[in-house]
Amino acid sequence: MGFRKGSEGPSFFDLFSQQAANLVSGAALLASILDASAQERVALRDHLHEIEHQGDEINHRIAQLVNQTFVTPFDREDLGAVASCLDDCMDFIDEAGDLIVMYGIENIPASVHSLVAEQIDIIARCADQTAHNIPALKSPLDLRDFWVELNRLENEGDLTYRRALTATFDSGADPITIIKLKDLVEVLEEATDAFENLASRIETIAVKES
Amino acid sequence: MGFRKGSEGPSFFDLFSQQAANLVSGAALLASILDASAQERVALRDHLHEIEHQGDEINHRIAQLVNQTFVTPFDREDLGAVASCLDDCMDFIDEAGDLIVMYGIENIPASVHSLVAEQIDIIARCADQTAHNIPALKSPLDLRDFWVELNRLENEGDLTYRRALTATFDSGADPITIIKLKDLVEVLEEATDAFENLASRIETIAVKES
Amino acid sequence: MGFRKGSEGPSFFDLFSQQAANLVSGAALLASILDASAQERVALRDHLHEIEHQGDEINHRIAQLVNQTFVTPFDREDLGAVASCLDDCMDFIDEAGDLIVMYGIENIPASVHSLVAEQIDIIARCADQTAHNIPALKSPLDLRDFWVELNRLENEGDLTYRRALTATFDSGADPITIIKLKDLVEVLEEATDAFENLASRIETIAVKES
Repeated sequence: MGFRKGSEGPSFFDLFSQQAANLVSGAALLASILDASAQERVALRDHLHEIEHQGDEINHRIAQLVNQTFVTPFDREDLGAVASCLDDCMDFIDEAGDLIVMYGIENIPASVHSLVAEQIDIIARCADQTAHNIPALKSPLDLRDFWVELNRLENEGDLTYRRALTATFDSGADPITIIKLKDLVEVLEEATDAFENLASRIETIAVKES
Repeated sequence: MGFRKGSEGPSFFDLFSQQAANLVSGAALLASILDASAQERVALRDHLHEIEHQGDEINHRIAQLVNQTFVTPFDREDLGAVASCLDDCMDFIDEAGDLIVMYGIENIPASVHSLVAEQIDIIARCADQTAHNIPALKSPLDLRDFWVELNRLENEGDLTYRRALTATFDSGADPITIIKLKDLVEVLEEATDAFENLASRIETIAVKES
Repeated sequence: MGFRKGSEGPSFFDLFSQQAANLVSGAALLASILDASAQERVALRDHLHEIEHQGDEINHRIAQLVNQTFVTPFDREDLGAVASCLDDCMDFIDEAGDLIVMYGIENIPASVHSLVAEQIDIIARCADQTAHNIPALKSPLDLRDFWVELNRLENEGDLTYRRALTATFDSGADPITIIKLKDLVEVLEEATDAFENLASRIETIAVKES
C-alpha cells in the first residue's frame, strides 16, 4: 500500500514521530521550568514555545499531506484526528509552562509542589510511551500495550491531580495563589487526558483495521 | 431495514436506552449526594462512578457496533454523535458528584443550596425525558416534542444557573468557598447543556430523515 | 456549479454574510456594554442576546440547507464547520457581554480596563475583517490575506490577553473581583481564538480547492 506522496518528503509516520519527539522535549522542559528560578524560567518557556511552534508547522504539513495524498494509510479523518490529538498534548504542555511563568508561580507549598512534579512526571512518561510506540502505528493492532499503558497512566494522573487539587485547597495559601495553583494543576490534568484521547483514537483505528 | 448484527446482541437502540436509564440513576444519585452527610457521600459518589464506568463500557460497545455493522439505521457519524452526547451527559453528572466530595462542599449557604438543588432537579427531568423518548429514536421525526422539551428545560436551567452564580457571589462566603461553589454551579450548567446538545443532534438526524 | 436550492431563498454565502454582519454588530454592542452604566447595560445586553439569537436561527437555516441541497459549493462538512465557527465567535461575544452584566463588573481598575477595551477592539477588527471577506468565500484561495490577517490579530490578541491577566492579578483588587475579571479576560481571549479557528478552517478549504 503506497501512502507516501511519491518518494520525496516524509511520510505520515515520519511526521507523527517528529511530533512525538517534540512531546518528549516539551515535557522535559516543563519539568525544568517548575524547578528553575524566575529568571531562568523565561528562557526555558521561550524554548518550549519554539518547540510548540515547530509542532504547529509539522501539524500543518500533516494536514497538507492528508489533503494531497491520493491513497492514505488509514481514513483521512483518522490521520487528521491523530495529528490533532498530538497537537493537543503539546498545547497543554506549552500552556502549563506558560502559566507558571505568566502567573509568576513561586514558593509553591511543599505539599503541592511534590504532587505537581508527579503530574509532570506522568506527562513525561506518556510522552516517552508515545515516542516509543508511534512509529509502529503502521500496524495499529500491535499497539495494544501502548493504549493500555496510556490508560493506566491517565488513571494514575487522575489520582495525582485530585490529590494535588485537595492539597492546594488545604495549603492555607492566600486565595490568589490558590486560583493560580488550581489553574496549573488543572491544565496538567488536561495534558494527561489529551494523551489518553490519543490512545483511544489509536484504539479506534485498530478496531477498524481488525 | 436490518440494523442488528444478526440476531445476537443488543441493537443500537437497546444500548442507547441503557445509557439513558443510567442517566436517570446518575441524576438521582447526584441529588442524594448533595443532601448526604460527608460520610455517606463517599459511598454514593463511588456508586455514581460505577454507573459512569458502566456507561463507558456501553459506549465502547456502541462504537464497536458502529464499526462492525454493515447496514446501520442512520449514518455512522450520527450514531457515534448520539452515543457521544449521552456519554457527555453522564460525564458532567459524574463530575458534579465528584466535585461535591472532592472539594468537601458543606454548609452551602441556603440561598445557593436551593438553586443548586433546582439545577440538579432540572438535570433529573432531562434524564427522565431522555429515558422516556430514546427508544423511539427509530422514528426520529416522532421525537419533536422531546427536543422542544429539552430546549425548554435548558432555558430553565440557564436561568437557574445564572441565579445560582449570582447567589454564590452575593453569599458573603469566603473566596475559597466561592471558587468551589462556582465550579459546582458551572458543571451543573454544563450537564444541562449536554442534554440540549443531545436533543439538537437528534433534531439534525430527524431533518435528514425527513 | 449550482449550489442554490433552486432560485428561492438565500445561498450559503448570503447566510454566512448575515452571520458576519451580526458579528460586527455584536462586537460594537460589547464595546458599549463595557463603558455603559449598570442601568444601561441591561438593555444593551438584551440587544446583544437578540443578535445572538438571530445568529442561532441563521445557523439553523444553514444546517437545513446543508442537509437539503443536492450539490453544495464545498464539502458538506466544510460548510457546517464554517457555520459552526461563525456561531462560536458570536457565542463568546455574547458570553462576554453577559458576564459583565451578570457579575456586575464595575469600577474596573484602570490598568485592567484599558487592556479589556483593547481585547474588545481586536475582536471588533476580527469581525470587520470577516464581514469584509466572507462574501469572497466562493473563491477561498483569494482569502489568503484574510486568514493571514486573522492570525496576526489573534497573536496581538494573545499578547493583550496575557497583559490583561497579569494586570488583573497585579491590580490589588479583592479575590472575588479578580475571579470575575479573570473570567471576562479569558472569554474575550476565547472569542479571538474562535476567529482564528474560522480563519484556519477557511484555509483548509482553500488547500483542498487548490
